[in-house]
Amino acid sequence: MPKISRRTAELPASPIRKLAPLAAKAKQEGKTVYNLNIGQPDIPTPRSFMEGVRNANLSVLSYSPSPGLPETLQALRGYYAEWGIDIPIQEMCVTIGGSEAFTFAMKAALDAGDELIVPEPFYPNYRGYACLTNVKLVPITTYAEDGFHLPGAAEIEAKITPRTRAFLFSNPGNPTGVVYTRAELERIASLAVKHDLFVISDEVYREFVYEGEPISVFQFPKLREHAILVDSISKRLSACGARVGVIASRNAEVMDAVNRMAQTRLSPPTFGQLGLVAFLADPDHKKAVDSMIAKFRSRRDTLFRAIRTIPGVVCERPAGAFYVIAKLPIDDAEDFVRFLLTDFDGGGETVMLAPGTGFYQTPGRGKDEVRIAYVLEEEKLVRAVELLKQGLVQYSKARAKVEAAA
Amino acid sequence: MPKISRRTAELPASPIRKLAPLAAKAKQEGKTVYNLNIGQPDIPTPRSFMEGVRNANLSVLSYSPSPGLPETLQALRGYYAEWGIDIPIQEMCVTIGGSEAFTFAMKAALDAGDELIVPEPFYPNYRGYACLTNVKLVPITTYAEDGFHLPGAAEIEAKITPRTRAFLFSNPGNPTGVVYTRAELERIASLAVKHDLFVISDEVYREFVYEGEPISVFQFPKLREHAILVDSISKRLSACGARVGVIASRNAEVMDAVNRMAQTRLSPPTFGQLGLVAFLADPDHKKAVDSMIAKFRSRRDTLFRAIRTIPGVVCERPAGAFYVIAKLPIDDAEDFVRFLLTDFDGGGETVMLAPGTGFYQTPGRGKDEVRIAYVLEEEKLVRAVELLKQGLVQYSKARAKVEAAA
Repeated sequence: MPKISRRTAELPASPIRKLAPLAAKAKQEGKTVYNLNIGQPDIPTPRSFMEGVRNANLSVLSYSPSPGLPETLQALRGYYAEWGIDIPIQEMCVTIGGSEAFTFAMKAALDAGDELIVPEPFYPNYRGYACLTNVKLVPITTYAEDGFHLPGAAEIEAKITPRTRAFLFSNPGNPTGVVYTRAELERIASLAVKHDLFVISDEVYREFVYEGEPISVFQFPKLREHAILVDSISKRLSACGARVGVIASRNAEVMDAVNRMAQTRLSPPTFGQLGLVAFLADPDHKKAVDSMIAKFRSRRDTLFRAIRTIPGVVCERPAGAFYVIAKLPIDDAEDFVRFLLTDFDGGGETVMLAPGTGFYQTPGRGKDEVRIAYVLEEEKLVRAVELLKQGLVQYSKARAKVEAAA
Repeated sequence: MPKISRRTAELPASPIRKLAPLAAKAKQEGKTVYNLNIGQPDIPTPRSFMEGVRNANLSVLSYSPSPGLPETLQALRGYYAEWGIDIPIQEMCVTIGGSEAFTFAMKAALDAGDELIVPEPFYPNYRGYACLTNVKLVPITTYAEDGFHLPGAAEIEAKITPRTRAFLFSNPGNPTGVVYTRAELERIASLAVKHDLFVISDEVYREFVYEGEPISVFQFPKLREHAILVDSISKRLSACGARVGVIASRNAEVMDAVNRMAQTRLSPPTFGQLGLVAFLADPDHKKAVDSMIAKFRSRRDTLFRAIRTIPGVVCERPAGAFYVIAKLPIDDAEDFVRFLLTDFDGGGETVMLAPGTGFYQTPGRGKDEVRIAYVLEEEKLVRAVELLKQGLVQYSKARAKVEAAA
C-alpha cells in the first residue's frame, strides 16, 4: 500500500474539527447551539449581487481570463478608488477567495524554509497556507491587555533573521479585532524597507472598522515594491461561497509570478465575478455595506457590554472585524468548550466558541482564551453570553469536584 | 527592493503566452484567426445547469462545506454510478476545477523532490502543478506513429527509481486523443502494485470517446489503495468557468490529507455546484452530453479527413478527447505558428495552433508537432485546415528563400 506524503501528513486539521462532531451531536440531541465559533456572517448577500448572477447572459460558461474578467478588474479598480487607493488593473489578479491570494503571496515572496513574521494570535488558516507552501511562521506575541496592538520596533526587529522574507498581518485583525494605527504600520514599513522584506497585508475586513480608520498597505509610498495586498469579497458582501478574492502588488516581479500561478489554475469562478460587478455597479452599494457595518457595530457593543459582566474575563473592546478574543478565568479553553457541548446544563441550549490555542504559533499560548464571532442577531448574542457565564460557573464547580476527588 | 522567490521565478509561463500577443495583434489588424490552440469548447452550457444557478434560492451565499455541498456529492455519486463506478461520498471531494484536484493529488502522493512518471506528450499544466508542488516529472515518450499508446511494461518499469511515488496520465488523453486499452491500464496497475505507487488518473474527457470505451482507474480492484481519480465538469458540461472538479480515492489516508487541504482553502464555489446538481437532476442529462459527443465525433472525422490531405503530415485518428497531435513536415512548429500569425498571407484569415514542445518534458521533442483542438464548427475546421495547408506551402517557400540568402 502506497504511503501518502510526509508534507500532507503534517498539515494541521482545523482545531475546530475535533469539536465539530460534539456540536453536531448536541444539535442531534435537540439542543440549540449558538455558533460563535465561525467567521460566516448571517447577513443576506446583497440583492444586486444575486441579480448579477441570475441575469448573467452567458451561452457558454467559458474560462475567464486567468487574472479575472476585464469588467471585474475594472470594477475592483473603482472600488479601491473609493478608498483612495489607486490600483491599475495589471497590478491586480482576481483569486479564488482570499485563500488563494494568501497562497500566491507566500509562494511569490518566500522559498521553502524561509521565515514569515506574523503577529499572534492570527487567522488559523495562515498555518495551513504556511504548511502547504513550506514556509516557517515566526510569531510576534501580542496581548489581550494591550488590545493586541504591536510591540515596539526593537522587539519586532529582533525576530528578523537572514531567512526572513516577509511580514504578514490582518488589519483589521482576525481574531483580535485590532485596527492598527498609522504609527504601528509605519513601524512595520520602516523595518520592511530597512531589511528588504515584503509586507503581506490581509485587508478583508477593511469595512469593519468602528473606531479609527482602516489604513491600507498601499497607502505607504515607501512600500511600493514591498506591499502585497490580500483581499476578499467574502465578508463585506457576505458572499463567502462566491470564492472571489484579490491579490495586488506594484512590484512587477510579484505580479508576473502571480500571473504565472494564475495561469496554472486557469481561472477564478465566473459567477462570483459577475455578481461583484453587478454589486459595484449599483450606485447604492456603499449604503448596503454601511448598513451592515452599523449592525455589526451595534452587535459589538452589545456583545462587549455583556462579556464585561462576566467576572474574571479580560477583554479590550475591539475596534474592527467581527471577532473578540476573551481571556477566561480557566486553564484550558478547549476543555471548557468540550464541557459546554457535552456536560453543561443550559436548559437545552449551549454555545460553541473557538478555543484560543488555534490562533497562536507559540506552544501553550492562548490556552485560557476563546474567540467569539458576533455573527448572530443581538438577542442571540446576549443569550449566548448568558450561557457562557453559566457555563463558567458550572465548569468551575465540576473542576473543583474532580480536583477534590483526586 | 525585496526579491521574489526562486520557486516562482522558475514557474513556466504557458507556452502559448509568447504567441498570444501576436494572435491579438492579428485580430486587431482585422484578420480572422481560427483559434485551434485552446481547450475551451464552443458548445452552449446546458440550460438545466444555467437554470440551476439562476434558481438558486439563497439568502446568504455562505461557505459550502470544504469537501462540497452534500447534494453535490450525492449527485456526483449518482453520476459515477451511471458509469458503473461506486464512489461513496466520503471518498470524494469537490475541488475548484480539475486544477485543484491535480494539486491535491500531487501534494498528497508526493513529497518535494519525489518523481512522478507521466507519458508525454501531456497536458502542459501538469508541468505547472509539478513546479508549484516541487515534484519531478519523469516522462515516458509516446509516439504519433503508435497513436500515442503506451510502451511495454519493461520500458515503463525502467523509469521507476527509489524516488518514484506515482503515475499520472489523462485517459482519454489531452493532447493526444488516445484512449488506453484495458491491457495498457493493466500494465500500469501491475507496476503500481508491484512498486507501491499511486496512480493518478485524469478522466476529465471520460465522455469524449469515439472508439473503444473509457476505463476508469476505479475499475481495477487491485488499485483500491493506489487509485486517485481526478475529474472535472468543465469539458463535459462546457462549464469551464464553473470551477468544479473532483478528487476521489478509496485510500483513507489520501482522503484525510485531501480533506485537510480542502479545509485550508475553505470551500469550492457554490454556484457551479448548484448548476451541476440541477444538470444531473434533469432526467435527460445524458442525452445532452450524447448529442454534444456526436457533434465532436463528426468534427473529429471532418478534421482528420482534412488533415490527411496535407502532404507529409503524420497523424493517427484519435479515439477520444477533442484534440489531435499532428506531426508537420517542418523543423520548428513554434516558428511556423509565429509565421502564420505574422507573415502568412491567407487573404485576411489565419489559424492559431499550439506548438508541440509545450506538451513534452524531454528537451527537443515535439518540435515538429502541433496540437489542434476541434472546438469550432465543422466548416470553420475545414477552412482552418485549408489555411494550415497553404501556410505550410508559404512557410517552406519563405524558409527556402532565407536559406538561399544565407
